[in-house]
Amino acid sequence: MTASREVHLAARPVGEPKRSDFELVEVELPDPGPGELLVRNAWMSVDPYMRGRMNDVKSYVPPFQIGSPLEGGAVGEVLASPDDRVPVGQQVMHMLGWREYALVPAEGARPIDTALAPAAAYLGVLGVTGFTAYVGLFEIAKLREGDVVFVSAAAGAVGSIAGQLAKIKGCRVIGSAGSAEKVDYLINVLGFDAAFNYRDGPVRDSLRRAAPDGIDVYFDNVGGEHLEAALECLRDFGRVAMCGAISLYNATELPPGPRNIPEVVRKRLMLRGFIITDHMQLMGDFVRDVGGWLQAGKIDYRETVVEGIERAPEALIGLFRGQNLGKMLVHIGDG
Amino acid sequence: MTASREVHLAARPVGEPKRSDFELVEVELPDPGPGELLVRNAWMSVDPYMRGRMNDVKSYVPPFQIGSPLEGGAVGEVLASPDDRVPVGQQVMHMLGWREYALVPAEGARPIDTALAPAAAYLGVLGVTGFTAYVGLFEIAKLREGDVVFVSAAAGAVGSIAGQLAKIKGCRVIGSAGSAEKVDYLINVLGFDAAFNYRDGPVRDSLRRAAPDGIDVYFDNVGGEHLEAALECLRDFGRVAMCGAISLYNATELPPGPRNIPEVVRKRLMLRGFIITDHMQLMGDFVRDVGGWLQAGKIDYRETVVEGIERAPEALIGLFRGQNLGKMLVHIGDG
Repeated sequence: MTASREVHLAARPVGEPKRSDFELVEVELPDPGPGELLVRNAWMSVDPYMRGRMNDVKSYVPPFQIGSPLEGGAVGEVLASPDDRVPVGQQVMHMLGWREYALVPAEGARPIDTALAPAAAYLGVLGVTGFTAYVGLFEIAKLREGDVVFVSAAAGAVGSIAGQLAKIKGCRVIGSAGSAEKVDYLINVLGFDAAFNYRDGPVRDSLRRAAPDGIDVYFDNVGGEHLEAALECLRDFGRVAMCGAISLYNATELPPGPRNIPEVVRKRLMLRGFIITDHMQLMGDFVRDVGGWLQAGKIDYRETVVEGIERAPEALIGLFRGQNLGKMLVHIGDG
Repeated sequence: MTASREVHLAARPVGEPKRSDFELVEVELPDPGPGELLVRNAWMSVDPYMRGRMNDVKSYVPPFQIGSPLEGGAVGEVLASPDDRVPVGQQVMHMLGWREYALVPAEGARPIDTALAPAAAYLGVLGVTGFTAYVGLFEIAKLREGDVVFVSAAAGAVGSIAGQLAKIKGCRVIGSAGSAEKVDYLINVLGFDAAFNYRDGPVRDSLRRAAPDGIDVYFDNVGGEHLEAALECLRDFGRVAMCGAISLYNATELPPGPRNIPEVVRKRLMLRGFIITDHMQLMGDFVRDVGGWLQAGKIDYRETVVEGIERAPEALIGLFRGQNLGKMLVHIGDG
């Protein structure tokens, strides 16, 4: 038996999640059964898509259940492995975050190499968020050298990698973010060609100034006003990789869609949504390319760390308020 | 010199075009110069995209000019060909409609074979509208056997061909149209699997009833409410060929776009706009395939004919009121 604390869904949020929608619960975990690992989680990932799973709607992942723990990416150390499929002491990445200790099916645990990068990087730049940037840019938007690329939420976990990958590929890159500090990071650390604070005025005006000749690719993490502005600024044959729409995840009623959707015909645009689990065949290429660029010092990544499992709910809430630079993580303990 | 009558743009319409936006003008055409043909137009095409050219906005074709004749597809007989590049008496298709006689640059005239099909068919099923259906379905939507396909404006020139091509390819086909007579035509003549009158109630409800298990492909001629309903009903990995948005062409202010645009991510949809001039390399395949199906009696096509060049404006106005079954044509005279 192992005493653990985990975060359960207490109520389905209406609009922005609040603390009372979560409950910290003390549990006693049984010993791992055959094929199960006992993992002590060190870090857990906090991602916008989790908001969707808090609603009771069918989507590409099933909803969280009230009274049960939330789930999500996590890394930690294997403490017990009854049938030795994974060695005790191995660091693994798995999908049972939001808890201090997890009983993880061995086939759901991926060993990670902490000599190559710190464990937490496997939740971000070398994990789901980095892979999302990679798939969206190369497989969905079919990035070409010389493209002008616009990335929204560009100081976030996915956007900051997407923008840097486009820079590595010789593109002109424009980013939007929600604070002057983030804009400074995009320009002066990541080397974006232009960036703006979307709170400073209409996105279409800011984007027009940053890209007077238009854009070829829009990597959409935000939806809403950002998408409408991008449709206006896209050039003929432009492509939109639709990754997410964080501006809408807390909406209790969906706002009108882009009024200028007829631009899609006039400019022969292509809009395509994607989810990385459909593209796992690219994982090898991703690890080779992004792992290599990381080791070569060509990619900067940041983490915003919230300390303690009990503060995981506020980390998720903070994500929707733009309180993160780069990847939002919860540090649960020593893995 | 040849006396001719032609339709000029008198004023830029606000909303629905009205008769006073057009002017019938008597002109004296000079004799054809080198490289020019004198053509007596027999038929002219009336198409929704012409409405866009009446506005003073940059688009993929330049706007019509006030005081100058409108333009558009036409077929007629070559009456004079000074340097014999095209024989006198040849029937040709060209882009100088809206007039009785045209001086056509020889390179802008395509000889047509009236033994294969009547001249007017080269403005419809064997012309721009048939080719539009072909490109949208096969090149843009990547139609696959067994797909469930929804076509809007399905009794129109493009939609009626698109639906029949999908039937030929073994798909289940659902159409929307604007009258009970058109719905009857779709079901009982064209063999659609289901059809509904979009004026009978919310499009989403009608589409859900016609396709309870969802659709794979939407061929969009209409935009607006139709597009929103299609996004709701599309299954995972669905594709939308965005051909036009006739519901919006007379709008003085664009209505809100589809509220459910986040479905594009959730269901990994692909939306792509297209214009056939980008796909002329498919013309040979089109003539072979659709010409063959036409000769084999597998394709039905209808024409709604308005008599006389002086009535061309009312033909265009009628198009936006849904007064056509199949292709809207103006019969100008004997070609």
